[in-house]
Amino acid sequence: MEYLFEHITGFHVFDEKGNHKKTYNNKEEINYDNYNTNITEELYQKILLFLKKESYLKEMYIKNIYLTRKDIKKSVYEDNLIIQSIRIIDDLNKVINHIAKRLREWYELHNPEFSKTCPDNERFVKIIIDNNKKELLEKINIDYEVSMGCELKEEDITIIKILAKEIERLIELKDIQKEYIEKKMNNICPNLLSIAGPLIGAKLIEHAGSLKHLSELPGSTIQLLGAEKALFRHIKSGAKCPKYGVLLNHPYVRDSPEKRKGKSARILADKISIAVKVDYFKGEFIADYLKEQLEKKKKDIK
Amino acid sequence: MEYLFEHITGFHVFDEKGNHKKTYNNKEEINYDNYNTNITEELYQKILLFLKKESYLKEMYIKNIYLTRKDIKKSVYEDNLIIQSIRIIDDLNKVINHIAKRLREWYELHNPEFSKTCPDNERFVKIIIDNNKKELLEKINIDYEVSMGCELKEEDITIIKILAKEIERLIELKDIQKEYIEKKMNNICPNLLSIAGPLIGAKLIEHAGSLKHLSELPGSTIQLLGAEKALFRHIKSGAKCPKYGVLLNHPYVRDSPEKRKGKSARILADKISIAVKVDYFKGEFIADYLKEQLEKKKKDIK
Repeated sequence: MEYLFEHITGFHVFDEKGNHKKTYNNKEEINYDNYNTNITEELYQKILLFLKKESYLKEMYIKNIYLTRKDIKKSVYEDNLIIQSIRIIDDLNKVINHIAKRLREWYELHNPEFSKTCPDNERFVKIIIDNNKKELLEKINIDYEVSMGCELKEEDITIIKILAKEIERLIELKDIQKEYIEKKMNNICPNLLSIAGPLIGAKLIEHAGSLKHLSELPGSTIQLLGAEKALFRHIKSGAKCPKYGVLLNHPYVRDSPEKRKGKSARILADKISIAVKVDYFKGEFIADYLKEQLEKKKKDIK
Repeated sequence: MEYLFEHITGFHVFDEKGNHKKTYNNKEEINYDNYNTNITEELYQKILLFLKKESYLKEMYIKNIYLTRKDIKKSVYEDNLIIQSIRIIDDLNKVINHIAKRLREWYELHNPEFSKTCPDNERFVKIIIDNNKKELLEKINIDYEVSMGCELKEEDITIIKILAKEIERLIELKDIQKEYIEKKMNNICPNLLSIAGPLIGAKLIEHAGSLKHLSELPGSTIQLLGAEKALFRHIKSGAKCPKYGVLLNHPYVRDSPEKRKGKSARILADKISIAVKVDYFKGEFIADYLKEQLEKKKKDIK
């Protein structure tokens, strides 16, 4: 009876004394009935000595790299893409606010009165694209002649509007990213998507590092994801313990009375923790049931 | 003879005893030959008392606001617009780099090998829009199978390309802003534009606050504009005095040998100082002559 030894460099056949007989490269060619795969300790030592030959070492090195590359290739999952996308959304938010502030500063040379009445950046950008100064001043009942803004030439207004349109496109891009996240989450974590929504759900995955890791976290940790700074301050210097992190923006917590926000966050985090576990192990869609429970608990704590 | 007193509320006519006779609202209605405008100290006191009446005070208040508004309106000059535009360019540079880094991070999941070979962000963005992974790997002679990047679905690649196209548009917007600055500077400071170029010229105006203020600065101050931090460190703690600020990016300084950069900056700043003074007082176009001198001096210090 000959022995079959499976190795990174191929399938090697040895006799009972440890002499090398042949090598298969493909599993398919092997008739397993002809070989014994239970290798004794004694034989194992001999085989290792045989494989220590330089030619095999080199081959092993090459195949090892090949397999590692393949593993790295496979190590990117959909949750990595979700994390990238939510980071882009965060960046876009910052960028939009920053450039919109500049736009405002510029536009205020021309029409300071209107700018003051419209604090929301995204709305501001859309309105000044579609309306000229006269129309905007009429809306807020200010006489055109009274305005302290200077007259601008056509070319100046054009370049301001080009900038405003760019900001508008960045805002649209944010929506496109959000849709993308929703699509991805629908594939890999429909329960999390349904309970937490695309943005908060993606943020939780980002903070945990992966869907797998998020599924391993207890509710109490999920409750504080995104509040790491405050948590460590609490541990280090005894400041107040934070009650919520990312979850604060969830309507279930945000719309709670101030005193019950912590409690709501805890309940929500518990349900999210369940949802993610079910998602990770490809379970059923149970989000509707969990949501029902959330509503019930809300009434209870009131 | 009656006396005419010009005041913010109108043109008032008094007799020699200080009794008010009439008021003109328009300069055009007045026949100056009929009136004496040299008001004696004694009469002046009486007139002031008359104007202290409440009705005049109120009118004065309203007219004062009106005139102030008008002045504010007129206080925006073309150099304000240049300053806004150069600030936007600065912002865009930051934003483009920031988002491009994110794009890279995302794209590297798919094709890490190519990303490493192309350090320039703007080029990177353009190339990945036009080429797929296979084409890019061929360019750098890497086998597609060997790549460590994962396979992405069509939808994933689409969203990455949408982001890349957005960055491309931001890069274009920078060029549009640059053209705008050039156009503006051509109107108000052609000499500065010709010597310093649009970006450095605009940066100098920005640091000085206005073209007027820039025209009042000596060459030695212009030389250090943009190096304020280093300058104050020098004054406060005796660190090395900076030799150039914004001007470092000018080819005349940048392309000088390391040891002569300070000298080149000084010479360039001198000529710029002349150019701006000429521009501010609407002088001739002398930039070509100044540039000639710069070239001459370059040869002298070599």
